[in-house]
Amino acid sequence: MRKFYVLVALFGMLLTSMSAQTFQGELLSEYVDPRIGSEGLGRVFVGPSCPFGMVKPSPDCTVHPNSGWLPMPEQVNGFAQVHVSGTGGGPKYGNVLITPFGSGMDRTEHIDYREYENIRLGYYDTRFKQSGIRTEITTAMRASFYRFTYPADSLKSLAIDAGFFLGESPVPDAREAQQFVGSEIEILSDREVAGYTRIRGGWNNGRAYTVYFYAETDKPFVKSATWKGDHITNDAYQYDSYEKTGALLRFADSDTVVQVKVGISFISSRRAQVNAHANIPHWSFETVRRDLVRQWEQLFRTIQISPRTPEAQKRMFYTALYHTMLMPVDRTGENPLWNDPEPYYDDFYAIWDTYRTSSPLITLIDPQREVDIIRSLVNIYKRDGYMPDARSGNCNGRTQGGSNAEIVIADAFVKGLRGIDYEQALQAMLKDATVPPGGNEEAEGRGGLVPYRELGYIPYGIPRAGNRTIEYSYCDYAIAQVARGLGKEDLYQEYLKQSGNWKNLWRSDYEHAGVKGFIMPRDADGNWLDQLPFGNSKLQKPTFTYTPVTFEGPWYTPWWDMFFYEASSWEYSLSIPHDVPGLIAQCGGSEAFEKRLDIFFDDGFFNVNNEPSFLTPCLYHWIGKPWRSGERIRQIIADNYNDTPMGLPGNDDSGAMSSWLAFHMIGLYPNAGQDYYLIHAPLLEETTFYLSNRKQFKIIARNLSDTNCYIQSVTLNGKDYPYSALRHKDLMAGGELVLVMGDRPGAWGNELGLNN
Amino acid sequence: MRKFYVLVALFGMLLTSMSAQTFQGELLSEYVDPRIGSEGLGRVFVGPSCPFGMVKPSPDCTVHPNSGWLPMPEQVNGFAQVHVSGTGGGPKYGNVLITPFGSGMDRTEHIDYREYENIRLGYYDTRFKQSGIRTEITTAMRASFYRFTYPADSLKSLAIDAGFFLGESPVPDAREAQQFVGSEIEILSDREVAGYTRIRGGWNNGRAYTVYFYAETDKPFVKSATWKGDHITNDAYQYDSYEKTGALLRFADSDTVVQVKVGISFISSRRAQVNAHANIPHWSFETVRRDLVRQWEQLFRTIQISPRTPEAQKRMFYTALYHTMLMPVDRTGENPLWNDPEPYYDDFYAIWDTYRTSSPLITLIDPQREVDIIRSLVNIYKRDGYMPDARSGNCNGRTQGGSNAEIVIADAFVKGLRGIDYEQALQAMLKDATVPPGGNEEAEGRGGLVPYRELGYIPYGIPRAGNRTIEYSYCDYAIAQVARGLGKEDLYQEYLKQSGNWKNLWRSDYEHAGVKGFIMPRDADGNWLDQLPFGNSKLQKPTFTYTPVTFEGPWYTPWWDMFFYEASSWEYSLSIPHDVPGLIAQCGGSEAFEKRLDIFFDDGFFNVNNEPSFLTPCLYHWIGKPWRSGERIRQIIADNYNDTPMGLPGNDDSGAMSSWLAFHMIGLYPNAGQDYYLIHAPLLEETTFYLSNRKQFKIIARNLSDTNCYIQSVTLNGKDYPYSALRHKDLMAGGELVLVMGDRPGAWGNELGLNN
Repeated sequence: MRKFYVLVALFGMLLTSMSAQTFQGELLSEYVDPRIGSEGLGRVFVGPSCPFGMVKPSPDCTVHPNSGWLPMPEQVNGFAQVHVSGTGGGPKYGNVLITPFGSGMDRTEHIDYREYENIRLGYYDTRFKQSGIRTEITTAMRASFYRFTYPADSLKSLAIDAGFFLGESPVPDAREAQQFVGSEIEILSDREVAGYTRIRGGWNNGRAYTVYFYAETDKPFVKSATWKGDHITNDAYQYDSYEKTGALLRFADSDTVVQVKVGISFISSRRAQVNAHANIPHWSFETVRRDLVRQWEQLFRTIQISPRTPEAQKRMFYTALYHTMLMPVDRTGENPLWNDPEPYYDDFYAIWDTYRTSSPLITLIDPQREVDIIRSLVNIYKRDGYMPDARSGNCNGRTQGGSNAEIVIADAFVKGLRGIDYEQALQAMLKDATVPPGGNEEAEGRGGLVPYRELGYIPYGIPRAGNRTIEYSYCDYAIAQVARGLGKEDLYQEYLKQSGNWKNLWRSDYEHAGVKGFIMPRDADGNWLDQLPFGNSKLQKPTFTYTPVTFEGPWYTPWWDMFFYEASSWEYSLSIPHDVPGLIAQCGGSEAFEKRLDIFFDDGFFNVNNEPSFLTPCLYHWIGKPWRSGERIRQIIADNYNDTPMGLPGNDDSGAMSSWLAFHMIGLYPNAGQDYYLIHAPLLEETTFYLSNRKQFKIIARNLSDTNCYIQSVTLNGKDYPYSALRHKDLMAGGELVLVMGDRPGAWGNELGLNN
Repeated sequence: MRKFYVLVALFGMLLTSMSAQTFQGELLSEYVDPRIGSEGLGRVFVGPSCPFGMVKPSPDCTVHPNSGWLPMPEQVNGFAQVHVSGTGGGPKYGNVLITPFGSGMDRTEHIDYREYENIRLGYYDTRFKQSGIRTEITTAMRASFYRFTYPADSLKSLAIDAGFFLGESPVPDAREAQQFVGSEIEILSDREVAGYTRIRGGWNNGRAYTVYFYAETDKPFVKSATWKGDHITNDAYQYDSYEKTGALLRFADSDTVVQVKVGISFISSRRAQVNAHANIPHWSFETVRRDLVRQWEQLFRTIQISPRTPEAQKRMFYTALYHTMLMPVDRTGENPLWNDPEPYYDDFYAIWDTYRTSSPLITLIDPQREVDIIRSLVNIYKRDGYMPDARSGNCNGRTQGGSNAEIVIADAFVKGLRGIDYEQALQAMLKDATVPPGGNEEAEGRGGLVPYRELGYIPYGIPRAGNRTIEYSYCDYAIAQVARGLGKEDLYQEYLKQSGNWKNLWRSDYEHAGVKGFIMPRDADGNWLDQLPFGNSKLQKPTFTYTPVTFEGPWYTPWWDMFFYEASSWEYSLSIPHDVPGLIAQCGGSEAFEKRLDIFFDDGFFNVNNEPSFLTPCLYHWIGKPWRSGERIRQIIADNYNDTPMGLPGNDDSGAMSSWLAFHMIGLYPNAGQDYYLIHAPLLEETTFYLSNRKQFKIIARNLSDTNCYIQSVTLNGKDYPYSALRHKDLMAGGELVLVMGDRPGAWGNELGLNN
């Protein structure tokens, strides 16, 4: 038991201070490989970052990639300080680019190529082919740290580009492209440069945001210049005239190693300076990295897996936890919009992606963090009018489907997270559910709310009518949960009723691939539509055929305005997390439902790389066959996830994919907004949660192997546990869940056991 | 004719360059008295300002007054650089306070009292009682200029307070109160201080805005300190930690005269520095003021009145022109939100006030300016989603009634202003008219649009249902005008029809004070309401009685959410500027209408100090009795307007009251959105317009006197002119309108003559 107490103590430190203890035994953070999911569709951020870190330095390889980084041999423009992880759509950030170079100070751009790359948690290392300069990067919460090693026989130059950003487009005002607003730079002394970049637009088509910076070097510049546009001068500063600016610095020939701190702020460059000095009051690269590793290690130690776990699984698991905690970013104290004591988080990108598994996972690892995140959501409602579904650059500005912050709140509420004003949170939820956002209906709240309330569904013609209808009904269920918990019976009944609205788009007699009943487009008069109109031409009325496999409309229809967002009716028609029994009934009962699920997975209607189908593999639980869920999950992971750079099958979406994987490896899967986890055959033979209440909960899969992947029986704290779902409160009570595994389906788990 | 050519030439310079010519003869700007309308309700800004000037330095006397200034003996906190003029509601701005003082550097606040005040156009002068320090102020467009004269035997100290602002409230998040966000200050050298103030809220409940400054002195500081909160230190700067900051400066004992430039920017403090140096590249107080005076003089010379005009009338007239051109403010190149070549204006405060007379007057004085203002409105639609009805601090955020930018556009369109993309402008108008703003329906666009379109009126319960209904119908008329002009017949018909919606709230059988037919509250089912409900209590259903004289509800109902905004049904029921003939019909014909107007004015239903009744005195024109309009106007002006500090009967509202006065003194009154002026007995015997097309138009009132105040006959360019309205194109054609005056009503003017 000694180890247990040590770890409980460690957990205490996690919650209380960033103390300087070193960890016993192997470092779990050693298993994190930032390259997992960095290539292909994954798009994860590969550079160093603290948990929920505001500063994320990384190479920027052209202006195109969402995370800044692309695999070798792609060019490197330099290293920008702010990035996002795993996102799709138009890029955001990529601000304040610093680039070491060895030539004269006659150009503003210094593209080079990588000779090698060494990427580890909190550490990025590369050498440029042309200049031979080595760049090592680590970071603190609000300041990045660079060590440049120059060849002895080259010039020692550094460029700081306040005009660079990702997603620049030649098309004026291109949708989702970042647009340049202004920049400024100033050489403060022979070791300090400050300034800012001001950008608008990007993925969430947001208002202007400003990234202020303060860069300090450990060696003096022997020469410096600044630029505006293409014009390089000796001026100490370039003021903002809506042009791109930057600085060129030269160090002494003897300075083969130069270190740079880059403090970042969204308030002012002096604030960035304070962040740099407060975060990094020294010049030790190793200390910065050690502090970063410790923060992660403390988090990882809250979920420990058997040392006997295969290396690949260890790497997949802890990297998944790592990905889950890269975003949203903690900008408390860095909010230029208002000034109050509440936490402030930005880069919810997007909650539509993360509410299903990321939030529940953070709630288990670091509940206080989740409380702070939710407080910031509610405070954004109070100050800006609506909670975001997505927010970036201090601006709500994008909804993908529902107003899913409501589900995040319900999830916290039913799991008993304390420290949230749930009465105010309910007001925020009700604002979404009752006040049309109007103006730009894509930005926040619930677009199409008026017909949704009048008709009980959103008629075709309003963008994303299909998934908005079913997701709003899920959000309504979330409201009902909180209302009931707060003793508001009328509200509960009202929203519970509305939560059935998804049925209004259920076309029972529609048959496809041998399955009956799909969520299909309907007009305001209640007619089902097989031919969907598009465009507003008064002359011709062009249409296209819509079927349950239609994913996008014709190329000339904006795909984000389709009936369903990023998925087909086959997927969404199985995506009713709040009323699976109701869904089974709609589908014609258990037998038909099982058949439907089998066709879904076997005939290729399942789309592993998108969130709407996250829960679907587990739906077999509701027909008393959790072993079939287990089979599907095992197969999906085997086919799509691994510990390589291609190890994620889709955009990680701020850790959504990764957290889905982490839960399934453990053998528990949450149904966000509800207070239980589905139990299925894990990939990990033993997992121990070191909980915030200082209890521990252990899951043991006895005799687990590739063939013994069926649960025969389960005991909870020694007692027989026949149910295939586990209440959150039972997990938080601590104890031991033992799964006895065998090589064929067992009798266990005919019921979820949620009615007790 | 020589004088004519000189003046044409002058006008040319006005449009082309700010050349250095001096003016022949008396300076019209000498007649401007900034104190007119500064006391009582007028609230005009008294400090120096360029036309549409971004920088408006003025004393700030406590944090309460909207313009910063209050009459002696009120205390003076110091002199802030940004203010608005004539506004009601919660204050805005009052940023970057500089205060000379003679004591030690041990306090952050230095309140003093005025010994005297000398206020003239472009010049403010006072001496403090306690310190004996004299402060003289003038200003350029984007930088203010101060001359402080210290007593020989006192310390020479100056405080720069980056934390001060107007409208601070002890109530957290009080509506319309400005809220502090952050501030920063830095001593750059022994003659330079820079920093910023970041504030949110205020009258338009707007998002955060940042006022950056750069202050430069002509004498070095011998000592300096900075403060944060109450803590004074020797630090060279105070970074932004959401606290109030400032600087204390000390000059040498021998420096009895110290001059200070304060550059302002909404982009950055370096930009503020550039503004300071570009606007004022010297240290001559007189030169700064002379440049300012020249800008005004060139504008005033476009409307010249007879030298024989009584002094008081000259002062009232040119001060009225002056007030009309203080706002909105030209912030082209100072927009932190986006970056494009379009003009950018801010502080539309509010178009609801100014569209009636201010915009038409600017169109006559400086049409290019009006074009730029409208381009900025359309560009705000393009970038922010809606044109503002009110905008301040770079944020739409308030509508009072209609979406009245539409009328401003229609006014420019029917008057043939060139250089505006009217197709895009129409799109902006249609956005207002078709897309509900949602979220905060008070911020922009048309609140209550959905029922307005469904029912043809806005039912009671939606804030400002009454005036919104009639103002939207007026805005619809504006859309119809532009649509027709652009050849969109369908749109024209559709919106012309909608422009009759005001009739849907006309309660024909409702009688009050002997008059029948009023615009009255109606519910969604079409029932007329005499008892208005308020509040949402489910238990009791409190109501209050609504009548045509009801102005505000009970104290516990927010007055800005009443049925009518800032006026009674008596006023609004006569406020249908786009369909006066229709209104007369509703009122029961000419005779009943005249009786109604008489009761309105004689029995005290007329409210001189608010815009909804601006046109009402002229309504006699439509029943063929322009002489009765003339009588009313003369009486209203005599009773309510004069050349004293109490000379304005209500909030000047960015020049709305003043421009109403100016038109009536000339004897022409515009009906905004339509292409004519109503002719009535002027107060001025001769007025000459020096028009942008280099023509001139002269109005002569022959034999005008206090008794000869009735028009007997009119000739236009020598020909008999029987009509009581003059087309804008006839004015722009140049020529001479001669009014022969007599001591009793003449036969002239039975018809408006608009049907020819």
